[in-house]
Amino acid sequence: MTPGRFITVEGTEGVGKSTNLNFIQQWLEGQGHRVLVTREPGGTPLAEELRSLLLAPRDETVDPMAELLMVFAARAQHLEQVIKPALAAGTWVLCDRFTDSTYAYQGGGRGFDQSVIAQLETLVQGELRPDLTVILDIDVEKGLARASQRSVPDRFEGEAVAFFERVRAVYHELAARAPNRYAVVDAGQPLEQVQQAIKQVLTNL
Amino acid sequence: MTPGRFITVEGTEGVGKSTNLNFIQQWLEGQGHRVLVTREPGGTPLAEELRSLLLAPRDETVDPMAELLMVFAARAQHLEQVIKPALAAGTWVLCDRFTDSTYAYQGGGRGFDQSVIAQLETLVQGELRPDLTVILDIDVEKGLARASQRSVPDRFEGEAVAFFERVRAVYHELAARAPNRYAVVDAGQPLEQVQQAIKQVLTNL
Repeated sequence: MTPGRFITVEGTEGVGKSTNLNFIQQWLEGQGHRVLVTREPGGTPLAEELRSLLLAPRDETVDPMAELLMVFAARAQHLEQVIKPALAAGTWVLCDRFTDSTYAYQGGGRGFDQSVIAQLETLVQGELRPDLTVILDIDVEKGLARASQRSVPDRFEGEAVAFFERVRAVYHELAARAPNRYAVVDAGQPLEQVQQAIKQVLTNL
Repeated sequence: MTPGRFITVEGTEGVGKSTNLNFIQQWLEGQGHRVLVTREPGGTPLAEELRSLLLAPRDETVDPMAELLMVFAARAQHLEQVIKPALAAGTWVLCDRFTDSTYAYQGGGRGFDQSVIAQLETLVQGELRPDLTVILDIDVEKGLARASQRSVPDRFEGEAVAFFERVRAVYHELAARAPNRYAVVDAGQPLEQVQQAIKQVLTNL
């Protein structure tokens, strides 16, 4: 059996991840693939409970190391219980955020040492990396304006513009370092053009 | 200002940790020390929420790496928000379980690679280690018989005797490797003798 491919979708707030995840899923299914759509942090009951702890606004200052370890705890559970078994069974896995979000949000946004993130990445994932990561890229203020029309901001959405500028900068660095794995798609274009660009990326895969 | 000392109390189920923590607190306060009593996993609102996730019996298999990272996430939060500030302010910290429990339960009990635990210990604690660790030691079956008279077992208390034999063996190994930091107290004796032995250890500190 051919193992499935592992595709992740990344981006700052308001880039249109949900809409485009949906588009990618339909396109892949149209090609005859079985597709599992999941998300991080989350994807299992325990990992979703960790997600709730991570996102809940709270009075207590959350230590950056504690936050980072919670993210990787949820990831370990998600990988072992869901992602790896699905890939092994030939299912394609389409994940809303993965370790690139950790580099971007905890590393870029919070300023956490990237080498510690890399150490935990190796500890938890071994050699496993996504086959393709689509980075939906948009001007930060434009994205935040879109996102603000939604619900009450969580502990990350409440951050300032400068935080998301650092997040976005790390996404660009990651893509520049491994252009074969990453596709940066301009999410500021009209939706039809965004999806045309995504389709091209998927066709190349 | 003299920083406080950091004392931890360890042991398998039913060794009488609560009673003896209470005794140690009173003895230290009797010597004029300010004492903060706390516990792991836990000790802050977020860390206590992680404790609940860790201890809750659940249908989902908990990946050992996910469990380990949750333990250290709670520890990072506890250290930065509670333990380090207290020690710096001259308060003695008396903690019900600490990283030796991780070596004993995740390492010994679950069979997790001790070198990975050591790696995370360094990442989260740097050089910080307890000044004294009291290991309350008891025959496993005797301890379990005592503990079973209490409430519904949590996800650890429900383990088999062999699990706790491995936990106990790691406690003995840790103590043998650094006899100056650890005091193994026979918790199978009558309480008065247990507390006499603890008092001796505290006097030596």
